Amino acid sequence: MKVAFQGEPGAYSEEAGNGYFDSPVTLPCDSFERVFSAVKSGECDYGLIPIENSLAGSIHQNYDLLLQNDLSLVGEYFLRVRHCLIAFPGVNKHEIKMVSSHPQALGQCAGYLHSMGVRIEPVYDTAGSVKMLKASNEHTHAAIASRKAAEIYGMQILEEGIEDNPENYTRFLAIASAPVTPAGEAKTSIVFTLRNQPGALFKALSVFALREIDLTKIESRPLAGKPWEYLFYIDFIGAVRDERVKKALDHLEEYALMLRVFGSYQRANII
Amino acid sequence: MKVAFQGEPGAYSEEAGNGYFDSPVTLPCDSFERVFSAVKSGECDYGLIPIENSLAGSIHQNYDLLLQNDLSLVGEYFLRVRHCLIAFPGVNKHEIKMVSSHPQALGQCAGYLHSMGVRIEPVYDTAGSVKMLKASNEHTHAAIASRKAAEIYGMQILEEGIEDNPENYTRFLAIASAPVTPAGEAKTSIVFTLRNQPGALFKALSVFALREIDLTKIESRPLAGKPWEYLFYIDFIGAVRDERVKKALDHLEEYALMLRVFGSYQRANII
Repeated sequence: MKVAFQGEPGAYSEEAGNGYFDSPVTLPCDSFERVFSAVKSGECDYGLIPIENSLAGSIHQNYDLLLQNDLSLVGEYFLRVRHCLIAFPGVNKHEIKMVSSHPQALGQCAGYLHSMGVRIEPVYDTAGSVKMLKASNEHTHAAIASRKAAEIYGMQILEEGIEDNPENYTRFLAIASAPVTPAGEAKTSIVFTLRNQPGALFKALSVFALREIDLTKIESRPLAGKPWEYLFYIDFIGAVRDERVKKALDHLEEYALMLRVFGSYQRANII
Repeated sequence: MKVAFQGEPGAYSEEAGNGYFDSPVTLPCDSFERVFSAVKSGECDYGLIPIENSLAGSIHQNYDLLLQNDLSLVGEYFLRVRHCLIAFPGVNKHEIKMVSSHPQALGQCAGYLHSMGVRIEPVYDTAGSVKMLKASNEHTHAAIASRKAAEIYGMQILEEGIEDNPENYTRFLAIASAPVTPAGEAKTSIVFTLRNQPGALFKALSVFALREIDLTKIESRPLAGKPWEYLFYIDFIGAVRDERVKKALDHLEEYALMLRVFGSYQRANII
């Protein structure tokens, strides 16, 4: 089984892939676009994309890419993100003058970094910041990434769990070329557009509320070329094969200008 | 009148400030946090923050900063974003090998840049990319920024309006230390949280739909420390002094765990 993820080896997405799939072969990709195209072309069986972090919010680019690519959502996975401060072996924490990582990781460790009194430098990727640190041979610099990234590059973990808020989880979605029939409790993800008129979103949500279908997420994204009109992405509990869900989606089609179901998949344990 | 904005002189935020306010003195800030603190401290009368772009979507950091800072929303402004390709005077377009700008600007000109066949380099700011180009003295490099940025640094505009999609607008909000009573048609911005139970958002939206109050925007952001619970930011037509709006907000308080009104302000002409 081959799984595409975005980032360098040791990225949190790879960790999620190893947690979700049974001993996968992983393909590191330099962009989310590349993850989608690797699944589309058949080069990989699955892609694993981060869709939301409990502190930083949605990864909006992946919402846009779901719309642009004709792929199915087939699974979800929650990863507890534990950031490590990583430096060359033998270096002490008090020697560190500069710390680099992805801006989101730097932001999630802002309090910790402030108390260290170091300069910070944003780079493109967490695991990539360790790779760059290794290449730079700078012994007064450190990076923030996963435990795995430190191991891959033979670097030292100065401290683990340095995020300011421990409630730091990322939700990942698995993409594939064909839909699945989920076993057990399911979630379904859809996207739709509405007429730009008063009460439109209220009516759309009524199709779920009237059937006591529980929404777990709503996200709005701009509709390109139509300023101040929106795409609505919704996740809810239930599978498209459920009678109640079928009826809700039929009902939604009465209001929606466009409606697409990305797929139903087994609900992961909410951590 | 002194107005804080984020970016270097010549930033689109400065252009919006000059369009919205009558001959303001502007204070360029290196971060959105700094814009908020300049208004809070009284150093500036107003701050002008981008909240949403019609192609790229919301500027989520500013939603978070609105919540964290006890300031009022007092106005809105729409700016048509026209990107310019900027280089040293005397340089021809075909000599350009590399183009730098803010990732969002690069993304909005992706088709144009692809057809040029140049390398691209993301930097922290659009106007900043012109400043850096000037300092580099690289005559085969170009930057993407506003007409004003080219003028400030004495550079040449090779081409104007290079964005792939002309429906490129940014909505700005004016922040101040005290609320205003808007003249003419108004918009109001609020944020609230709900109990995490089925139908909660539907009930919250009903307070507007039942009174035919038109929502113009809904945005959800993670509630820090409570994974997979959300803050909902809503903009709607009407002012808090309107009887209908007062009743809707009273009604919303029955469902909301937290409700805050950021302010009512004159609705800008939707471009």
